[in-house]
Amino acid sequence: MKKKLSTDEMVKRLLASDRRSAARLITLVENEMDDHHKVMSLVYPHTGKAMILGITGAGGAGKSTLTDHLIGKFREQGNKVGVVVVDPSSPFSGGAFLGDRIRLQSHSQDDGVYIRSMASRGYLGGLSRATYDVIRIMEAMGNEVVIVETLGAGQDEVDVIHIAHTCLVLVTPGMGDDIQAMKAGIMEIADIIVLNKADLDGADRSLRHLQGALTAGSFEEGEWMPRVVSTVSAASKPEDLQGIDELAATIAEHQAYLRKTRAIDQVKYNRVEQELGLIFKDELQKIIFKGLKGTGKKREYIESIIEQQDDPYSVVKEVLNTYLLTGE
Amino acid sequence: MKKKLSTDEMVKRLLASDRRSAARLITLVENEMDDHHKVMSLVYPHTGKAMILGITGAGGAGKSTLTDHLIGKFREQGNKVGVVVVDPSSPFSGGAFLGDRIRLQSHSQDDGVYIRSMASRGYLGGLSRATYDVIRIMEAMGNEVVIVETLGAGQDEVDVIHIAHTCLVLVTPGMGDDIQAMKAGIMEIADIIVLNKADLDGADRSLRHLQGALTAGSFEEGEWMPRVVSTVSAASKPEDLQGIDELAATIAEHQAYLRKTRAIDQVKYNRVEQELGLIFKDELQKIIFKGLKGTGKKREYIESIIEQQDDPYSVVKEVLNTYLLTGE
Repeated sequence: MKKKLSTDEMVKRLLASDRRSAARLITLVENEMDDHHKVMSLVYPHTGKAMILGITGAGGAGKSTLTDHLIGKFREQGNKVGVVVVDPSSPFSGGAFLGDRIRLQSHSQDDGVYIRSMASRGYLGGLSRATYDVIRIMEAMGNEVVIVETLGAGQDEVDVIHIAHTCLVLVTPGMGDDIQAMKAGIMEIADIIVLNKADLDGADRSLRHLQGALTAGSFEEGEWMPRVVSTVSAASKPEDLQGIDELAATIAEHQAYLRKTRAIDQVKYNRVEQELGLIFKDELQKIIFKGLKGTGKKREYIESIIEQQDDPYSVVKEVLNTYLLTGE
Repeated sequence: MKKKLSTDEMVKRLLASDRRSAARLITLVENEMDDHHKVMSLVYPHTGKAMILGITGAGGAGKSTLTDHLIGKFREQGNKVGVVVVDPSSPFSGGAFLGDRIRLQSHSQDDGVYIRSMASRGYLGGLSRATYDVIRIMEAMGNEVVIVETLGAGQDEVDVIHIAHTCLVLVTPGMGDDIQAMKAGIMEIADIIVLNKADLDGADRSLRHLQGALTAGSFEEGEWMPRVVSTVSAASKPEDLQGIDELAATIAEHQAYLRKTRAIDQVKYNRVEQELGLIFKDELQKIIFKGLKGTGKKREYIESIIEQQDDPYSVVKEVLNTYLLTGE
C-alpha cells in the first residue's frame, strides 16, 4: 500500500522540483481541500522571482503553437518553464482544448517543462483564484518562467492576464484592422502585440493599422510603448517559421525595461492586490454560508424573495447585520 | 431647466413602461450609484413573472439574427420584449458589437421592444450582478419576455445563462461534431440546441451527431431531454429562412413543461440564490475596503507579502479577525 505523504513533505518535494508532488498540490488547491491554506502559506515564501508571461488572444489565433516555440526559446536560455493553460469549460472551446492536448505531448519528454490545464469550474471568480495559486506553485517548483495562456474572451480570462509581468496579445490579419476594437482594449493590456499568421493575405495592412494605432496613442516619456511583432508560428518546415527570435528578444527587452524603471514593483503590487481581493471574497462568503448552514434560513430568505415579500438587497443587509458585526 | 426626477418617480414611470426612466435606472444600477439598493428594492416586487430566455453561442453563430426573428415571434404573440446583450468589452469581440448596433436599428420603431447592451467593466463578478439587476428592471417595465444574449465563452457569460428559464445554445455545422466538446457542456446548459446556418455543408452530419449525443445521454423519466432545432436565421429572401416557427414552438413547449412539472420553481430558486451570492460578495468586499481605507494598512499588508514576510491567506485571516467579528 502506498504511504500517504504529509502536506509538509509534499511541499518539500515540490521545492525540489518533484513533478508528482506538484500535480498533487495543484489538485489539492484546485479542489480547495482542507490543507489548501497551509499549502499556500508554505509555498509563498518560495515565490515572487519567476517571470510571468501572459499570452492571450481569440481562439484560432495560434496561441498554442506560439507558446510551444517560446517554451523552446526559454529552454535554450537554460530556464525551466511552467505553463498554466486556462481553458474555459465552455462548450465552445473544443479547438483550444484539443490544441492543448497536442502540445502536452510535444514536451512530454522534457523534465524542464511542466504544463497544466485548468478547466473553469462554473463558479464565479473561483477559477481565477485557483489560477493564481497554481502559478505560485509553479514558481515554488523552481520554474524561472511561468507562462499563463488564456482565451481572450470573457472577463475572467482578461483579468488573469493582469498579474503577468509581460503580456502578449495575439491578433491575426484582418482582426486588428478595426481601430475602435483596438482602442477598446488591446493597448491597455498588451505589452507586445503579436501579429501571428503574418503569411496570410492582408498582413501588411494589419501591421500598418496596428502601428498607426500605437503611434496615435499617447504615451508618457519613459513609458513602455507596446511593440508589434509579426510571427508565423505554424509552418510545415521549420525554416518557414518567422519572428520567433524577434519575439523572444522583445520579451527580454520588456523585462529589462521593467527592472530598469522599477515598474516591476508596481506589477508585483498589483498581483498581490488582486490575489488578496479574490481570497477575501471567497473567505467572506464561506463565513456567511457557515452561519446560515443547517438553519434553514437560506431557503426561507430565498422563498421570501420569490414570493416578493422581500428583495435580495434587504436580505443581504439583514444577514450581514446578523452574522457579522463590523468593527467600527 | 429640466426638473430632476426622484428615484421613486422614476420607478413609478418605469412601471408604466417609460423607456426614458428605464434607461436612467439601468445606468444608475450599472454605475452603482447611491440609490442603487433603493431602486432594486422598489423594483423587485414587480418582477418574477416574465419568461427569461437565454441565448448563447460562439461569435459568428448567428445569435443576433436569430434573436431578431424571435423578437418578431414574441411580438406577434402580443408580448413586450426586453433584450439584454452582454457584450464582453474584450478587444476580441468587435464582430458581436457591430451586429448588435445593426439590430438595434431594426427594432427602433417598436415601442414594445427594449434593447440594452451591457459592456463588461473589468471587475470580477461586477458584470453579472448588474446584469441580473437590469433583467429585473426590464421585467418591472412590463416586458413579458426578457432575452439575455451572451457570447458563449468565458465563465461570466455561461453563468448569466443559469438564470434563464429556457436556454438556447447555438451551434453551426462542423462545430457540433466533436462529441467530447458536446459532453463537456452543451447538454448541461442547453434546453434547446439550435443548429443554425443549417444550409451550410455538413449540416446533416452535424445534426446526426447532435442527435446521437443526446440519445446517448441519460435522462430520467419525465426529465426534459434537450431538443435540436435546425434553423437558417440569415437569408436574403424571407422565404429562405428556416426553422424559426419550429424554434418558437419548441420554446413554448419547454415553457409548458416547466409549468406542468413545477420545474419552474427550481429555476426561480436558483436565480435568487445566484443573485444573493453576488450581492453578498460585493457588499462584504465593500465592508472590508471601508475598514482598511485611509489606514495605510492595505499597502503595508501587500508589501509584507511581496517581501515574503507574510502570505495572503494569513493576511486575510488577520484582517477578518480585526474587522469582522463572526457571530458564533
